[in-house]
Amino acid sequence: MNDFKDRADELIVAGKTLYAQGMVPATSGNFSARLNDGTLAITVSGRHKGQLSGDDIMRIDVQGKPIDPQRPSAETGLHTQIYARYPDVGCVLHPHPRSATVVSRRWGDFIRLSDYELLKVFPGIISHATSMYVPIFDNDQDIGRLAKQVGAYMGENSPLFGYIIRSHGLYTWGKTVADALRYVEAFDYLFSCELQLKEA
Amino acid sequence: MNDFKDRADELIVAGKTLYAQGMVPATSGNFSARLNDGTLAITVSGRHKGQLSGDDIMRIDVQGKPIDPQRPSAETGLHTQIYARYPDVGCVLHPHPRSATVVSRRWGDFIRLSDYELLKVFPGIISHATSMYVPIFDNDQDIGRLAKQVGAYMGENSPLFGYIIRSHGLYTWGKTVADALRYVEAFDYLFSCELQLKEA
Amino acid sequence: MNDFKDRADELIVAGKTLYAQGMVPATSGNFSARLNDGTLAITVSGRHKGQLSGDDIMRIDVQGKPIDPQRPSAETGLHTQIYARYPDVGCVLHPHPRSATVVSRRWGDFIRLSDYELLKVFPGIISHATSMYVPIFDNDQDIGRLAKQVGAYMGENSPLFGYIIRSHGLYTWGKTVADALRYVEAFDYLFSCELQLKEA
Amino acid sequence: MNDFKDRADELIVAGKTLYAQGMVPATSGNFSARLNDGTLAITVSGRHKGQLSGDDIMRIDVQGKPIDPQRPSAETGLHTQIYARYPDVGCVLHPHPRSATVVSRRWGDFIRLSDYELLKVFPGIISHATSMYVPIFDNDQDIGRLAKQVGAYMGENSPLFGYIIRSHGLYTWGKTVADALRYVEAFDYLFSCELQLKEA
Repeated sequence: MNDFKDRADELIVAGKTLYAQGMVPATSGNFSARLNDGTLAITVSGRHKGQLSGDDIMRIDVQGKPIDPQRPSAETGLHTQIYARYPDVGCVLHPHPRSATVVSRRWGDFIRLSDYELLKVFPGIISHATSMYVPIFDNDQDIGRLAKQVGAYMGENSPLFGYIIRSHGLYTWGKTVADALRYVEAFDYLFSCELQLKEA
Repeated sequence: MNDFKDRADELIVAGKTLYAQGMVPATSGNFSARLNDGTLAITVSGRHKGQLSGDDIMRIDVQGKPIDPQRPSAETGLHTQIYARYPDVGCVLHPHPRSATVVSRRWGDFIRLSDYELLKVFPGIISHATSMYVPIFDNDQDIGRLAKQVGAYMGENSPLFGYIIRSHGLYTWGKTVADALRYVEAFDYLFSCELQLKEA
Repeated sequence: MNDFKDRADELIVAGKTLYAQGMVPATSGNFSARLNDGTLAITVSGRHKGQLSGDDIMRIDVQGKPIDPQRPSAETGLHTQIYARYPDVGCVLHPHPRSATVVSRRWGDFIRLSDYELLKVFPGIISHATSMYVPIFDNDQDIGRLAKQVGAYMGENSPLFGYIIRSHGLYTWGKTVADALRYVEAFDYLFSCELQLKEA
Repeated sequence: MNDFKDRADELIVAGKTLYAQGMVPATSGNFSARLNDGTLAITVSGRHKGQLSGDDIMRIDVQGKPIDPQRPSAETGLHTQIYARYPDVGCVLHPHPRSATVVSRRWGDFIRLSDYELLKVFPGIISHATSMYVPIFDNDQDIGRLAKQVGAYMGENSPLFGYIIRSHGLYTWGKTVADALRYVEAFDYLFSCELQLKEA
């Protein structure tokens, strides 16, 4: 169980960090991490992400079935999908940066990020002279149906570092909680640059 | 009196939170909470909302008449109106987020918020596929007259989660102080998205 | 001397507050307060306003002549002018909010602030239904010459709550340090609203 | 070695300051300082600049060869170039302020900063009535080749206080860490003003 406690503590800190940056307003967003035994730690549904405590993180199995008595995030299916597809992934973060929400209402099916040095933050990218396509999926309250759309895209596009759900938020993932947090910061920075370039 | 102390402490924390986010500049804004005996706790007129102490919160009755010797907020009538109409409401927050002020000078009688996942923060909203209309009332130093306008609108539009006073600020309310704070965050996020969409 | 220590402590806190809000970047800005014996406490030239200590505040007389051995702010003449003209003023703050700098490059000789509830923060303004004109003076390294321009305007326009120096920053003043800080917050809020209204 | 410890501590604080301002997102940016014996302290490659500890700062010689066993920043050649050319420089900071990145995608080979009082923060500038040209170089993963471009410009343009690498970030330098930090703040303020003026 020390493994659970360690990951939970990291998710709690991630929540405080992202809340301070305005990226999980109200009780929005949800976070998870993979545990050593293959099960997952995930935020309980509806909790304030800037004030998480140990009671706000619970365990689920790889299918998303609760191991602990609480109710996991309604978007659990989008988390388990990522762990199932990418064996290396140890953390999934889903914040609601305003930059992602506004981008998703201005762009169509994707936003292209080109020529930014910060792209090198993502694994395997060794030069700014590249383009990353971040897909934008229409929001859907039927998480199973939304997961199918995402899964189809994942099957055909690799590597993938994150995606946006329209008028909703960002999903990104990494080997560790620290890695995933870095990708959140990078995406928010890059989306904000793109928005500012549209305005200027 | 423990009830008063608890609610006052929550309003003090709410003030620090909103001040840190720039939502109650100078000494603007006012907050209140309903007490167990049906009376109200409300901020004393003219105090700095980021530096509230117990002395800056006083009790009034449901008509807005002071129970304690201080002078309550000049906008007390807008608070008592909300408690009278909505028996479930336990807290009213009136901050001055810049987003609300700017929105109110760009939009007409209302702003429509559509298709945002964050709308689900409000009670009873279970899908992003909806529109919320937030009314904008012209500012009026005659609070009684302004309350009449608001009351007429309330009578015809339900549910209502908040409103804007033009060039002035936001009113929102909830069962608890924590709930009302969440709605402030959500409105500020959504208004800011709408403004950024106009700019981009 | 307790009076000096009290005012210096208030200016130190004001510096930390304004620095945290990005309003005194680098070592910009300068602050002063009137002491009981009629002399003034003012920030020493070139100090970091977010890291002020007692050594960074010195005394000058009403003509701006140093009483302490350090060198006062180069803009001392603009401070002494305000104390000489307005006997009630106990504090002058000169921060460089970006909003004031950008406004001064977009507007001409003044910016008009109309219909904002927040205008009621300023003494004597009891309704939003008013207009405040904030004059914008061209910057001048000759502080005596600049002071003459400001003085001429002051002689003809009353009441005056603050002014902008073009591409430079804001001057505002109040009875106490707390009052002047409130006016800084109000001006920054209102200038920022006006800028956002131009963009949207 | 006390000298190393002192400079390292200053760079650690600089990292926290710049991270809090969003200027070194993810693990971007790198910092260095000149030591008394002529060698340099520089951030180890890939570290989180907001969470630097003593282990994240290492020593290199003036050619950029590691003295300590870690791997220095990939952009070491841009740091050593500055120390070689400017004997007075004691610190080089390379953050990624969003303002610099966006400016570099909107402007061509340089951005001109004119008439700002804040320009007086830079050494030798005694009036706002001047223009500073900040060159913008195209990004290049070949740091040697990029350094050659920068070097050629430096040879022909003096004084130079900083430069932008396109879609990448800002380089600036000063006698001390505190000086260089002030220049970062000033550039970010001035770039942000210029961007806001384009939008408005």
